[in-house]
Amino acid sequence: MTNVSTADDAGESQAVVQLAPGCTREDVTEGERYVARVNGVVDYGIFVDLSENVSGLVHESTLSRQYEVGDELVVELAEIRQNGDLSFEPADIEPENVVERAPSYDRTATAVLRQNVGQTVHLEGEVVQVKQTGGPTIFRVRDETAIVPCTAFEGAGVRAHAAVEVGDVVHVRGVVETREDSVQVEVDDIERLNDDRERSVRNRLEAAVAERAEPPELDPLVDWPALEQMLPELRRVARRLRRTVLESRPIRIRHHADGDGMCAAVPVQLALERLIEKTHAEPSAKRHQLKRLPSKAPYYEMEDATRDLNYSLGDRDRHGQKLPLLLMLDNGSTEEDRPAYRTLDHYDIPIIVLDHHHPDPEAVEPFVEEHVNPYLHGEDYRITAGMLSVELARMIDPTLTDELRHVPAVAGLSDRSKADAMDDYLALAKEAGHSRDSLEEIGEALDYEAYMLRYDAGRTLIYDVLGIDDVDEARHRDLVTFLDDRAGDAVDAQLDDAMSHVDHERIANGAHLYRLDLDAHAHRFTYPAPGKTTGEIHDRKVTETREPVISIGYGPDFAVLRSDGVRLDIPQMVSDLNDELPGAGVSGGGHLVVGSIRFVPGMREAVLDALVEKMADAEIDEALSSTLDR
Amino acid sequence: MTNVSTADDAGESQAVVQLAPGCTREDVTEGERYVARVNGVVDYGIFVDLSENVSGLVHESTLSRQYEVGDELVVELAEIRQNGDLSFEPADIEPENVVERAPSYDRTATAVLRQNVGQTVHLEGEVVQVKQTGGPTIFRVRDETAIVPCTAFEGAGVRAHAAVEVGDVVHVRGVVETREDSVQVEVDDIERLNDDRERSVRNRLEAAVAERAEPPELDPLVDWPALEQMLPELRRVARRLRRTVLESRPIRIRHHADGDGMCAAVPVQLALERLIEKTHAEPSAKRHQLKRLPSKAPYYEMEDATRDLNYSLGDRDRHGQKLPLLLMLDNGSTEEDRPAYRTLDHYDIPIIVLDHHHPDPEAVEPFVEEHVNPYLHGEDYRITAGMLSVELARMIDPTLTDELRHVPAVAGLSDRSKADAMDDYLALAKEAGHSRDSLEEIGEALDYEAYMLRYDAGRTLIYDVLGIDDVDEARHRDLVTFLDDRAGDAVDAQLDDAMSHVDHERIANGAHLYRLDLDAHAHRFTYPAPGKTTGEIHDRKVTETREPVISIGYGPDFAVLRSDGVRLDIPQMVSDLNDELPGAGVSGGGHLVVGSIRFVPGMREAVLDALVEKMADAEIDEALSSTLDR
Amino acid sequence: MTNVSTADDAGESQAVVQLAPGCTREDVTEGERYVARVNGVVDYGIFVDLSENVSGLVHESTLSRQYEVGDELVVELAEIRQNGDLSFEPADIEPENVVERAPSYDRTATAVLRQNVGQTVHLEGEVVQVKQTGGPTIFRVRDETAIVPCTAFEGAGVRAHAAVEVGDVVHVRGVVETREDSVQVEVDDIERLNDDRERSVRNRLEAAVAERAEPPELDPLVDWPALEQMLPELRRVARRLRRTVLESRPIRIRHHADGDGMCAAVPVQLALERLIEKTHAEPSAKRHQLKRLPSKAPYYEMEDATRDLNYSLGDRDRHGQKLPLLLMLDNGSTEEDRPAYRTLDHYDIPIIVLDHHHPDPEAVEPFVEEHVNPYLHGEDYRITAGMLSVELARMIDPTLTDELRHVPAVAGLSDRSKADAMDDYLALAKEAGHSRDSLEEIGEALDYEAYMLRYDAGRTLIYDVLGIDDVDEARHRDLVTFLDDRAGDAVDAQLDDAMSHVDHERIANGAHLYRLDLDAHAHRFTYPAPGKTTGEIHDRKVTETREPVISIGYGPDFAVLRSDGVRLDIPQMVSDLNDELPGAGVSGGGHLVVGSIRFVPGMREAVLDALVEKMADAEIDEALSSTLDR
Repeated sequence: MTNVSTADDAGESQAVVQLAPGCTREDVTEGERYVARVNGVVDYGIFVDLSENVSGLVHESTLSRQYEVGDELVVELAEIRQNGDLSFEPADIEPENVVERAPSYDRTATAVLRQNVGQTVHLEGEVVQVKQTGGPTIFRVRDETAIVPCTAFEGAGVRAHAAVEVGDVVHVRGVVETREDSVQVEVDDIERLNDDRERSVRNRLEAAVAERAEPPELDPLVDWPALEQMLPELRRVARRLRRTVLESRPIRIRHHADGDGMCAAVPVQLALERLIEKTHAEPSAKRHQLKRLPSKAPYYEMEDATRDLNYSLGDRDRHGQKLPLLLMLDNGSTEEDRPAYRTLDHYDIPIIVLDHHHPDPEAVEPFVEEHVNPYLHGEDYRITAGMLSVELARMIDPTLTDELRHVPAVAGLSDRSKADAMDDYLALAKEAGHSRDSLEEIGEALDYEAYMLRYDAGRTLIYDVLGIDDVDEARHRDLVTFLDDRAGDAVDAQLDDAMSHVDHERIANGAHLYRLDLDAHAHRFTYPAPGKTTGEIHDRKVTETREPVISIGYGPDFAVLRSDGVRLDIPQMVSDLNDELPGAGVSGGGHLVVGSIRFVPGMREAVLDALVEKMADAEIDEALSSTLDR
Repeated sequence: MTNVSTADDAGESQAVVQLAPGCTREDVTEGERYVARVNGVVDYGIFVDLSENVSGLVHESTLSRQYEVGDELVVELAEIRQNGDLSFEPADIEPENVVERAPSYDRTATAVLRQNVGQTVHLEGEVVQVKQTGGPTIFRVRDETAIVPCTAFEGAGVRAHAAVEVGDVVHVRGVVETREDSVQVEVDDIERLNDDRERSVRNRLEAAVAERAEPPELDPLVDWPALEQMLPELRRVARRLRRTVLESRPIRIRHHADGDGMCAAVPVQLALERLIEKTHAEPSAKRHQLKRLPSKAPYYEMEDATRDLNYSLGDRDRHGQKLPLLLMLDNGSTEEDRPAYRTLDHYDIPIIVLDHHHPDPEAVEPFVEEHVNPYLHGEDYRITAGMLSVELARMIDPTLTDELRHVPAVAGLSDRSKADAMDDYLALAKEAGHSRDSLEEIGEALDYEAYMLRYDAGRTLIYDVLGIDDVDEARHRDLVTFLDDRAGDAVDAQLDDAMSHVDHERIANGAHLYRLDLDAHAHRFTYPAPGKTTGEIHDRKVTETREPVISIGYGPDFAVLRSDGVRLDIPQMVSDLNDELPGAGVSGGGHLVVGSIRFVPGMREAVLDALVEKMADAEIDEALSSTLDR
Repeated sequence: MTNVSTADDAGESQAVVQLAPGCTREDVTEGERYVARVNGVVDYGIFVDLSENVSGLVHESTLSRQYEVGDELVVELAEIRQNGDLSFEPADIEPENVVERAPSYDRTATAVLRQNVGQTVHLEGEVVQVKQTGGPTIFRVRDETAIVPCTAFEGAGVRAHAAVEVGDVVHVRGVVETREDSVQVEVDDIERLNDDRERSVRNRLEAAVAERAEPPELDPLVDWPALEQMLPELRRVARRLRRTVLESRPIRIRHHADGDGMCAAVPVQLALERLIEKTHAEPSAKRHQLKRLPSKAPYYEMEDATRDLNYSLGDRDRHGQKLPLLLMLDNGSTEEDRPAYRTLDHYDIPIIVLDHHHPDPEAVEPFVEEHVNPYLHGEDYRITAGMLSVELARMIDPTLTDELRHVPAVAGLSDRSKADAMDDYLALAKEAGHSRDSLEEIGEALDYEAYMLRYDAGRTLIYDVLGIDDVDEARHRDLVTFLDDRAGDAVDAQLDDAMSHVDHERIANGAHLYRLDLDAHAHRFTYPAPGKTTGEIHDRKVTETREPVISIGYGPDFAVLRSDGVRLDIPQMVSDLNDELPGAGVSGGGHLVVGSIRFVPGMREAVLDALVEKMADAEIDEALSSTLDR
């Protein structure tokens, strides 16, 4: 044993260090012992590797035996020379008492990379996207300050660092570069962190996200205890949505395509767009990360859920995006939504529901993360989805407050809410320059445009109609007046043709019953649609008679029902009809005085006859109004 | 006051110059006085700024008082040193008699930038697009020679020069670079020009555009006074379209989806594509800048207008494009188009109409820039839209003349035009190798493909069928023959099944009346559609009887009407039916002997009965033919 | 004549060489004579060009007459100087006996370009795509080793080397560069090769492609002579598809949208995706090069063919792609497919059919390259398309074998195949962990998802349901169970309402006849669709009665037919009905005991009455079962 000099102070208890592959010269110290591997044998000694970045010479003079490439031995770092070369000596002990050492480095925050262009830096963060290009693989890495693209090249179109996936916490070593003036890191190495180090990075990220996700403390637009008790829930939803944006998960908003539904969804869309703009460097992010999708049906249909899922999986395959969060607005609380939720439940797609329709919490809640609904607080539909959503939008982007002041009033008028707070909301809208008439016009214009756009959400056009997003006020007013006129004319034309074909009878309980065959006496495939046509007829008859009125508008396989002054309890009627008329396939529902049902066309007469019989027996209750229970 | 030497010749009347921020050293002269601002105080004097680019030292020895950073004073430029440094002395006067000075620079035309790679240049022009990328902001700037992208960086994804918008006239200072071998300018500064300078740039641009937008002087394809009188209008439209391309505004063509409508729209599409290719560097420009959209309805529907608007606003939001110009072809002259026009009127979307249907100028013209229609010249539908459009296409790209020689004849035959000029058009087509039969086959093939493509315009396939755009003649002929055969077989099959169900009666005025329930006795959702089916039946009956014939093909809520030899005046009938049958919701129209009407399904029998009654009273006029008045 | 020295050994027979424009100094030798062109005249002589790259001086002292720029003369290469300059002397002869010389160069294989970065290389290959960008033109060139992008710049957005088109064989000279770490060639010159050189390159490419296109030799999944005899055909199809991928031609798969059709198309999709991933550097290639499109109709409709053609022409125009190959799976063998095939036949779109429906080879085969169908081998529908396709998929990517083991059994159960091999397939699936029940559930789940996705193919979602592509087994099983339950519930609900409206009668031959008016007594626009509803009713009645049963489900213009135990021969019935009922427009077809027909709505009663009459006369044959002949 030639290795006398170091044996003295080392003793048998001195640990042998096994460097991790990513370790650099910063991780070694003179006098320490390391596990090394021979990677070259020359006349004057052997070259050994301690890690991918640390290697040096063991001089022939210190060696007591022959080595071949690949042999493992324990060495001691004798000297770090002035030129940087490392000189080792064999420790001539077995690699016992081995301690592993991870690379030490000074972490750089992604937000300040621009100050380090051209330098090698170390980042720690979570991989939020992995995108394979025809050239390098792009890892988007998020730390507690920002998100930065890191490009790694293995071969053209070849996935680099195949073990690293979305969701992993990693250490990236690379050189900072600017590309079209935006900053990126050219990767030298990416390694997944584990255990303690992963946990510490996650904690740091989590703390930062938690802080940035926290909604601001705001007073609601109006002083209203009924709504106030729901604010904590709305804050939870706002926090979750903010966090979803910060974590780069896309959001899909599904909403009822009527006036209140648009007043609910459009402000949240705008608020999320603004937050996404602040979070993501790419201006196109607000289109990729957010979709607003109107639903014609009063519930989340299987076809829609299947298409949403298919689309989201495609985005994941194509762009390496996370699967989205689904936000249901003015929709989603009922038993009929359950099959769609169950479909999505097979995948990582969180669901949040904000609705004001009569809920079925047992059916829905096993599948949703948050379920906000006034009925769960002893309130009802009078707190409309739009009223709730405007508060939610403000919690996402409080600078929207001024722009949204008139929106709850539009929502309330659209859904004919008789909430106590309506006066306050109307007053607030008046301060913002909107009379009650102009708010009603906005509601009609929204409804008309929703019809004209069919399945398209119509971003800017709808912003212009609703009067938000730095709106041109003159255009907004002109456009609303024009669209409201068009809608009004279309309703008048429809009713001019339909009214003379409305059948009237007086049923046993004394109520007026009006019936219209919509397929025969309403224009098809034009505005207004059957539900609105029936509602408009009903409203006119209520005004005309000032007595209890029931209206039925029916097509080949459906009927729309409205009552003022008669307690119908439509869900009960559906259930009874199903028992009495096997083979009629009656489905649908609604509330006490508003609803719609479906049946097989061949049983239409039987269903309508049985329905009218029930209506004739129904209890008169003049306090009930269909305009209070949509 | 130490400043003795200059006081002598300066006097109080010497102006003090206030440099604009963009001024450079080229804008200053020794001996002149300037408004300056202190930006640094040192032992040996103060540093002053005259503009963003001009600064220098006032030596301590010349100062008579203390200054602080931010102080304003008047200085005189004492010396421009050899090393380029500027040396100032205080003028010790108040900044009265101040003259503003804009930067002087030698403007470089964008078309010759390639000769200036690596150099700083000055451009003047209009911003035609502002596109925010994940890195820099890209301003596309148009001067009188070309359009060049100018990239400005403020921060990754941050909008640079936020005050500069599409439509502004600007001065750009920057360095010419090549990128993927195309040229661009890396912006040092962009400033909006105002007043005189803006006006002068606009005039220069305008003169250049006006010159390039000027259509060539061409003789029409045939010598035809009726059409000749419309050439000045067509020139105006051509000029406007050429200008629209030169100004980078997109164009949407909406056209009737029948044979004449396609003969109108497709040549203009091709001509505009060629002009766009010459104007824009990007080969994809012809797809982004131009859309051709067939309309099934005989007018511009609200749904279509809403979708066009929504799409255009989306393009503006996404790509910073201008809103488009709308070009209506073989469509757009009637009262029914007005609501759609009014919708677009809220936005900057100019509308041009070229139609040959009976116009309602009062309804339409408040909303359109140009309204070309033979009826406005005492002519009629016999000058088809296709005939007019071919002349328009030639004014946009005169090199198309040879390729388009057969197109007016196809248009004329498709619309059964009995124009005097038809013989000349047929002769012209014969010279181009097309017999009358082959032209009719092209018309049928176009009609068939329009049906098969539904809402898709079908660019190259339609070019191949029409036989334009460097067409492969053999394929064109084979394809047309095949499609014409298919269309013919489909018509025969439809009529084989329908003919035995056509009801016949002789009405009071002696005419034959033929009626077919299309829903019961024609195949649904297949070619030919109801209108064509009715027309084919009618034509056969006219040929068969050689006496006055009226045909009605009806569905649940519509009827198609044709007459030969009986003056129906369908608009009058619609008006009368509406008076007589309240609640039938009769709408629609047409001309003397051709039309279609809609009604609510439940009133079909009443409407048809009343209609037939009117027909029985209608005046026989054997000169009238439905083939003359489509 | 000053040129004495060389005249001696040259004589009149010495050839004069005309260099091709691309020739370099490597193509010239001292002492040889060349055709040259004067490109400069100076005091001390004339400069001459021999090619674009070869030029030099003819010294004044050797010249016997005056020359002007542009003059042609014959020169002899006197000397290649040490500094590389070429010195010529005039040969003073006429350019007779001229021999053309192409450039000589050392060709580099595209696969090893990475070793030549920064160097000028010579490639030979076929142009497979020409894409014009806003900057350079990009030629993708394929040699026998790989495909490489070659960029050529003529002017921003200007098509470089306009004579070079897709399909040409070329020689490219250029410099190898890396761009975003992928390799490309910056073109100095591209020239089309002709004659011998083209032939030799094509042969080399062809040999390489032929080798790589050759499918591996595999045993089929089960030992089954009926299928075994079809393996050579499947190998031909596999070879053609592999070659299509290697030659960068896109593939469109059209398939029947039912269970067997998806089991046929989805494995081939996955196999082709994997091959495309290996062949193309771009990860997006598998989306651009491959589309799977479900067809609802039992044949290839004209509308679909027109849209496919329009889409393909658009891709060619936009991306310079080749027109696609069309692969028809579980569809495409019948006379009804012919018009669609004839439409595509006008363009370069090869068609391959793999079907197991009763074929009409005479109608189809003139238009298709391969027609695989068990009936052409004396077999029948029992060899399902899915069974055949799984073998085809394995021949494209043999590593899929394990993943696909259960798929033939799913296909067989979906189509109720009574093939002898079903037991073996079931056993194979059992080895892979799938019970018969779970396979049936997969079939139902596929059918349900096909309905929910409508016209979308639904890539990953369908992979998850079928359980392939590195599937998450737990999710696959949960998802299948859930979807199968949903489908079962929907069928039960439909039948609950329909069953009481099914009319029953006993017809003359003793069979039970069941009829249902689907429009009146089935729910519309929901799962299950009319065909499946009728099939489910029929199956229940067969089980219930255990006697001969015929079922008819009819709508306004169609009827679905099923028989167990009665020989209907539906094609014959359609033909007879057409003769007996002119104007009823009866079409459609099927086989002995399964079929569907269409008619005009107004003749429905007459058609159904006549049909039932024929059924009453039909022969009882208890061996026949509709579950054996779908």
